[in-house]
Amino acid sequence: MVIILKPDANDIQIKIISNMIKDFGLDVHIIKGETCIIIGIIGDTTKIDEGAIELLDGVDRIIHIQEPFKKVNRKFHPNNSIIKVSNKEIGSNKIALIAGPCSVENEDQILEIAKRVKESGAHFLRGGAFKPRTSPYAFQGMGIEGLKLLNIAKEETGLPIVSEIMSTEYLDFFIENVDIIQVGARNMQNFDLLKALGKTNKPILLKRGLCSTIEELLMSAEYILSSGNDNVILCERGIRTFENYTRNTLDISAIPVIKKLSHLPVIVDPSHASGMWWMVEPLSKAAIAAGADGLIIEVHNDPIHALCDGQQSITPDRFSQLVNKLKLIANIENREI
Amino acid sequence: MVIILKPDANDIQIKIISNMIKDFGLDVHIIKGETCIIIGIIGDTTKIDEGAIELLDGVDRIIHIQEPFKKVNRKFHPNNSIIKVSNKEIGSNKIALIAGPCSVENEDQILEIAKRVKESGAHFLRGGAFKPRTSPYAFQGMGIEGLKLLNIAKEETGLPIVSEIMSTEYLDFFIENVDIIQVGARNMQNFDLLKALGKTNKPILLKRGLCSTIEELLMSAEYILSSGNDNVILCERGIRTFENYTRNTLDISAIPVIKKLSHLPVIVDPSHASGMWWMVEPLSKAAIAAGADGLIIEVHNDPIHALCDGQQSITPDRFSQLVNKLKLIANIENREI
Amino acid sequence: MVIILKPDANDIQIKIISNMIKDFGLDVHIIKGETCIIIGIIGDTTKIDEGAIELLDGVDRIIHIQEPFKKVNRKFHPNNSIIKVSNKEIGSNKIALIAGPCSVENEDQILEIAKRVKESGAHFLRGGAFKPRTSPYAFQGMGIEGLKLLNIAKEETGLPIVSEIMSTEYLDFFIENVDIIQVGARNMQNFDLLKALGKTNKPILLKRGLCSTIEELLMSAEYILSSGNDNVILCERGIRTFENYTRNTLDISAIPVIKKLSHLPVIVDPSHASGMWWMVEPLSKAAIAAGADGLIIEVHNDPIHALCDGQQSITPDRFSQLVNKLKLIANIENREI
Amino acid sequence: MVIILKPDANDIQIKIISNMIKDFGLDVHIIKGETCIIIGIIGDTTKIDEGAIELLDGVDRIIHIQEPFKKVNRKFHPNNSIIKVSNKEIGSNKIALIAGPCSVENEDQILEIAKRVKESGAHFLRGGAFKPRTSPYAFQGMGIEGLKLLNIAKEETGLPIVSEIMSTEYLDFFIENVDIIQVGARNMQNFDLLKALGKTNKPILLKRGLCSTIEELLMSAEYILSSGNDNVILCERGIRTFENYTRNTLDISAIPVIKKLSHLPVIVDPSHASGMWWMVEPLSKAAIAAGADGLIIEVHNDPIHALCDGQQSITPDRFSQLVNKLKLIANIENREI
Repeated sequence: MVIILKPDANDIQIKIISNMIKDFGLDVHIIKGETCIIIGIIGDTTKIDEGAIELLDGVDRIIHIQEPFKKVNRKFHPNNSIIKVSNKEIGSNKIALIAGPCSVENEDQILEIAKRVKESGAHFLRGGAFKPRTSPYAFQGMGIEGLKLLNIAKEETGLPIVSEIMSTEYLDFFIENVDIIQVGARNMQNFDLLKALGKTNKPILLKRGLCSTIEELLMSAEYILSSGNDNVILCERGIRTFENYTRNTLDISAIPVIKKLSHLPVIVDPSHASGMWWMVEPLSKAAIAAGADGLIIEVHNDPIHALCDGQQSITPDRFSQLVNKLKLIANIENREI
Repeated sequence: MVIILKPDANDIQIKIISNMIKDFGLDVHIIKGETCIIIGIIGDTTKIDEGAIELLDGVDRIIHIQEPFKKVNRKFHPNNSIIKVSNKEIGSNKIALIAGPCSVENEDQILEIAKRVKESGAHFLRGGAFKPRTSPYAFQGMGIEGLKLLNIAKEETGLPIVSEIMSTEYLDFFIENVDIIQVGARNMQNFDLLKALGKTNKPILLKRGLCSTIEELLMSAEYILSSGNDNVILCERGIRTFENYTRNTLDISAIPVIKKLSHLPVIVDPSHASGMWWMVEPLSKAAIAAGADGLIIEVHNDPIHALCDGQQSITPDRFSQLVNKLKLIANIENREI
Repeated sequence: MVIILKPDANDIQIKIISNMIKDFGLDVHIIKGETCIIIGIIGDTTKIDEGAIELLDGVDRIIHIQEPFKKVNRKFHPNNSIIKVSNKEIGSNKIALIAGPCSVENEDQILEIAKRVKESGAHFLRGGAFKPRTSPYAFQGMGIEGLKLLNIAKEETGLPIVSEIMSTEYLDFFIENVDIIQVGARNMQNFDLLKALGKTNKPILLKRGLCSTIEELLMSAEYILSSGNDNVILCERGIRTFENYTRNTLDISAIPVIKKLSHLPVIVDPSHASGMWWMVEPLSKAAIAAGADGLIIEVHNDPIHALCDGQQSITPDRFSQLVNKLKLIANIENREI
Repeated sequence: MVIILKPDANDIQIKIISNMIKDFGLDVHIIKGETCIIIGIIGDTTKIDEGAIELLDGVDRIIHIQEPFKKVNRKFHPNNSIIKVSNKEIGSNKIALIAGPCSVENEDQILEIAKRVKESGAHFLRGGAFKPRTSPYAFQGMGIEGLKLLNIAKEETGLPIVSEIMSTEYLDFFIENVDIIQVGARNMQNFDLLKALGKTNKPILLKRGLCSTIEELLMSAEYILSSGNDNVILCERGIRTFENYTRNTLDISAIPVIKKLSHLPVIVDPSHASGMWWMVEPLSKAAIAAGADGLIIEVHNDPIHALCDGQQSITPDRFSQLVNKLKLIANIENREI
């Protein structure tokens, strides 16, 4: 932590500030220049309320030095984390493909899609059962019934299931019936939910909030890890910007940044990032080229009649063609799909 | 709803689109120009999945016409809603002042602050018991114990209590012990929580999400009203922008916009909007001048030792001086405090 | 400047970094902690290319300490600057009202509006002659002819003129015919224009760019002052955010922030900030309540037939009513209009 | 154009609105529903001031239908534009690589870099002579002298030159000495400059503004084309968002969106988008995978001593390795480098 003092800070003020820091058991290093005085503090400064320091007379402002995340930090865990899900892995050399409809709608639909995406090379089946919708009047998902249908599809295809949880109410049911529990963008800072998931040992797919910084995403992952669950997969799914041609703006840079800062795997959701099916292919290719560990893609056998997100879903045929292209890009990086 | 067709849309495509719309029991109006064809649809288009229509051959894009919110819409409820809380009101001619610490820390602290803000003219006492913090390592609030201390302060001062709920776990306790239940910015789209609050009849203080549009804020309020609870107070608390000198950017325009679109009262939180105590005064004055129905302000008797948000808390003395200025501004608009 | 080293930086690396700093004639202060090493540097670090330092082995990142603006900085010029324009002032205790149409359209129009706004209390007449329009097909202003008409209005009313310059091509004409030269938001970082204006002694009204930080606005003002012209008035006119109900988002917080960081006067443009005439009144009141030194407002005698920005122009009658309200708010702050 | 009326608009109001539209020679189509009335207008609505229509009694709001750009619109020019530069092309099947230093610093530097990037496969040499810098105290480029050095490098290597113009002052010199004239992000809406460039027949590299929408970028290109110059290359270089780990946020989606909306070529600048050299590789690969027609990359032989942007420059060796990878990605899409 570095404290920047006001140019006119006097010795008494510096004394008071120093003593306050020392009370926390930390060393104080004062550097005086002609036009500026700074105080450097090294050590575990998490106990200090920086806001309070800023209120002291003579203080101009505080600058953070250490990253606030620890367990997710690559500095303290240099190797990539590999998350095990059933007999599969996410974060290894093999790129993970998660595909399926926005919502589970009925048994025929989910079975049909599950079979088709498996044939094309998907490793996991996604499907929404509880849907967070902006409007209370929109289709809210099939709920528990949807999770049951997903399991029928799993039995048929062997694909592990990814589905979104919206509150702790059905946590036990999710633990039993879902292989990867997804936390949606709108719940990324639902800290009570994160803590509850941290007490399980299920793999968690944590989506970045629409307006969350990468640091905040990592801090939300930190909630889960610090509660005891290391099985977290991060997901970039587009952020909100002033550009409104696309639904969101895919932050492709987040991939190398997260890879640098953290050991956790990071996947990309090109469907929600763009909101338009014809952008799924270029964004998916870009994501793999930039180093993502996987993709989560909305695939629907009949997008025109989909109960939600039809416009951003691709057909199984397009998915199949896309996977073929992705394999070639993966090979360039010595990865496989 | 208006469907814009591609310039080269042919008659068969138009027929298919028209039939799909008519299947929903709606009338279709086709307008053909030289370079452009549009289809106008009037009526209850909520049943139509616009995403699906966009996938039909010949369609360029869809344009919304009707606002998606109904119960919160001023068009269908022209008069201001006035929310009753104990023997007080929010949304009437009288401006509501909610003041208190970020967090309840102990009995002396909350009693002292409650008394001081009451003397200065506050009508409600705020105090956090469950705190949503970005870091799992930060102080998370006193929990249930904090709510009990708030009630001791209420007994002493008569000030009704405002406190934030983070999940449905303690909903019953909140219903019994809190006068206005606050939903924080990070939970604005925690739809399960909104639905649960909609089934109570408690006044709800709904804060705008950091990156939520005004329309999304109104849709979240719609969740509560459509579940049966009309007692919603909206709160503008700053949005996230590229400017990072301030913690957030107070969207002062949201006040007249919300007033135009909705009948619900709107208050402003200048403390979180700026993140700096010295900006609370100018922003509070601006909010009242722009027509806000109230303010929620962080006040602490000892900001330097506050357990959270000390840097954005003002002292009881400053609060008192501020209230005097606000009264003068309110008078100009023929309102009182 | 503070250099944060990587946790594993070794002594040789620290030596190289230190030597590089010392080569610039600066002192180096090394602070070693258990998990972190930082190097503090005090003095004139403007000569150092921080980007280059960041490339050195062992360096994690660089943190700025000193504000990059000097001549506009309140630290070195504690008193408010008061800009003299003809027999008037901006930045003094008296609040400046600048009013007039988006574009000069013809003599009758500008004369009529000039007389009406003067009667209502305006101190300056604004009017666009050269218009920066997003579309090449939109009305681009009357050019030189427009400036001539503004001068006729000035002769009639005595109101000094504010008009926007778009390039240095007509700079001489502006110097002779305009009292305050406005630099529009889109030209805020047209550095060649800023330098040219810095070589005149005309008052410059510098508008904040749509996506410029407050620091960048101050740096653009620094270009003008460092070229020799101290007569700069800053203008907050709304920034671009994700919220799209309003044309821009008025950053009301910019007023107290600029007042704290700089000695230059700051005014507000509520017309462009909102893009809607009915928001001009609440935003104007908010701006004065928050401490702005003036307002620049679009007023048109016939908004429906205005050649541009009709929807955000208020009528002379509304302007008159608004000024009466603003006077009352100004009085509360012991200022006058 | 579609006019949405207020629910309570009466027949007289509708008559007045209709007549106003008809005065422009346009047909009016009124569609009345139970809760909503809309007026559809087909034809050339560019003459109508929509802002004025919005002011008419009974009007709720206006909705655009037709894209405001014409000459750059793919609808009216379905085939890709291929821009010829010397004996090379941009926008064809061959991907264009532009490389070179942020600033020309001296003859040795530019010669050395030019030779190295040519060897590695670059087709064009970039180099800044006039530099737009946020601070007036930063290095502002070598000016005319820099352009001369670029030409020496061109003579040696045969690489055509790309350099940024900042105002019309040196336009003639640029026309004679530069092969592609670059317009920087900060000047994207310097309309006087765009018009002047539109009157030349030089290829123009138009960079997207930091906070400009894709539509605004296309409108700025429209300025150049509508002035007579069809040789425009668009450049995505990152936009400003709330995320501040990276200097800007590369909007990778802009590539497929621009390709859909316009026939002009689009290239990507990964150096400015990220501001960090280690992100240039993943972002470059992502850009080519997403369909970009080229890249403009900062390459410096001695980044640590670069006069500007050292931290985002890659070395010639890294550039060489990058090009090898890019070739493989290009091949997957049946393109070459």
